[in-house]
Amino acid sequence: MEISVTEVSPRDGLQSITNLVSTADKIELARRAAAAGIRRIEATSFVSPRAIPQMADAEDVLAGLADLNDVTLEALVPNLRGAERAALTPVHDWVCFISATESHSQANTNCSVDEALARIEPVVALAKNCGRTPVAAIACAFGCPFEGVTPLEETIKLVKVLAEMGIQRIKFGDTIGTAIPRQVATLAQKLTADNPEVDPVLHLHNTRGLSLANVLAGLQAGITSFESSIGGTGGCPFAPGASGNVATEDLIHFLHAEGHETGVDLAQVISTGKWLEEQLGHSLPAHLLRVGPIGTLVSFNDVKRAKG
Amino acid sequence: MEISVTEVSPRDGLQSITNLVSTADKIELARRAAAAGIRRIEATSFVSPRAIPQMADAEDVLAGLADLNDVTLEALVPNLRGAERAALTPVHDWVCFISATESHSQANTNCSVDEALARIEPVVALAKNCGRTPVAAIACAFGCPFEGVTPLEETIKLVKVLAEMGIQRIKFGDTIGTAIPRQVATLAQKLTADNPEVDPVLHLHNTRGLSLANVLAGLQAGITSFESSIGGTGGCPFAPGASGNVATEDLIHFLHAEGHETGVDLAQVISTGKWLEEQLGHSLPAHLLRVGPIGTLVSFNDVKRAKG
Repeated sequence: MEISVTEVSPRDGLQSITNLVSTADKIELARRAAAAGIRRIEATSFVSPRAIPQMADAEDVLAGLADLNDVTLEALVPNLRGAERAALTPVHDWVCFISATESHSQANTNCSVDEALARIEPVVALAKNCGRTPVAAIACAFGCPFEGVTPLEETIKLVKVLAEMGIQRIKFGDTIGTAIPRQVATLAQKLTADNPEVDPVLHLHNTRGLSLANVLAGLQAGITSFESSIGGTGGCPFAPGASGNVATEDLIHFLHAEGHETGVDLAQVISTGKWLEEQLGHSLPAHLLRVGPIGTLVSFNDVKRAKG
Repeated sequence: MEISVTEVSPRDGLQSITNLVSTADKIELARRAAAAGIRRIEATSFVSPRAIPQMADAEDVLAGLADLNDVTLEALVPNLRGAERAALTPVHDWVCFISATESHSQANTNCSVDEALARIEPVVALAKNCGRTPVAAIACAFGCPFEGVTPLEETIKLVKVLAEMGIQRIKFGDTIGTAIPRQVATLAQKLTADNPEVDPVLHLHNTRGLSLANVLAGLQAGITSFESSIGGTGGCPFAPGASGNVATEDLIHFLHAEGHETGVDLAQVISTGKWLEEQLGHSLPAHLLRVGPIGTLVSFNDVKRAKG
């Protein structure tokens, strides 16, 4: 099966890092991902620079990626002010964030879910007006740090409102890494049955080691779009307990091993992960940064020597 | 579904550690696992103390567990010499190791697969003669560090020989963490079709982040017995690239979240993992040792305060 993988490291992977990553490094990270064959990149966020200083260079990052003609660039566009900035850049897909739970909405954006939906409307309108595509990302689609497991109905309720706004592509964020295969399968079945016009994207975290089991459940239920972050970087600053996105290295490795096609060169993703470790000055959680892909052979003679 | 989990940390989890763990700590580790509700424990190995000094206290470890009446104790019994030692102890299930590939057989036991099968025969005979149960463990059942992916036919060929010897319980070892869900599903389907008398046990490693995806595939294919190691300790000393078993903390957490029953108390397993980290003096890879189970709530007020 042909699987679409969106690289989110330039935005989601870096946004929680306190030390400012240089604009040049962000651009290089995204360009390396593109060179590896990734065709969708969440490059930055038009959030207020005061709220997240790491994303203050959104315009410059996107300018540095403007020539990547075969890549769909995405950016978070939280409100009309952000949309007015995004309209002046080459970013094509505008991602509107919405929390599935009231508590996370308040913690993350200081407003209720309904108020957040109201903020999205002018962003969607402007996107359509200037030839861009509005996309939605539902945070805490599976679980919330404050409210526990998110009832499926809450997530589906949002899907219906967003679909009515004309949003087709919807990302389902496992913000704190609590999704389980049963939830993923149930959500996917419900979407297929009730909202076949929606193009679902799974955004998973490996907080409890479950990310690839959830990918498997998603694939089995017909989901073909996933998000991941090189190195396994990332995590929501306003979601305590959140940690690393599923690593692009591990996701691509898994998809290829299972016989799916991604158009992505695993070796180049791994070398980008190693490059990112050097830039950040510490190791990252991706398994494939520590061990070779399946089929990597070791020398039998070395073992005999080691045994003496 | 009722799932059986075998705890392998006292043997597989500790055998590669160079510093000797005290016999008392090994006994405490196994007793804590039993107290948490685990009903099968791979407690030690009757391998030569020269080959693996960490397992030299096999008799003493088992003597310290003799009163655990509701737990099935397992030990590795590599040859007739080991079997003669095991017969003098309370260990009920004798685990015979066999590699699915010639290269790993040579590296691990200095003999061919056929020679290894010949070594198993007298162990099986003595086990039956003194009222014990012979069990088999197939190493490199999915992949080999020297030969790459193990062809399904090689593993199945061994299953047939072992089943003819009268061995019912067979462990399938993902020795170097290369198993993928497709392989697990295919193996399980083949066993159900051709060898329904075999009781398969999946022994998975998380080397490439795939352990719980493989558990999911196993469950879907009807496998109900899994092995794991507290903390995610372990790895084969003669299989380069091998690393941690799937952690008991993560496996139990996943099984419960998916609605399966194990009879095991997750909180007690986690506290045992923390205890083991203290004894070993370093952190262990189990995810659930770093983050709470699904449903763990954080205080909304703390977040408001942290945001200022």
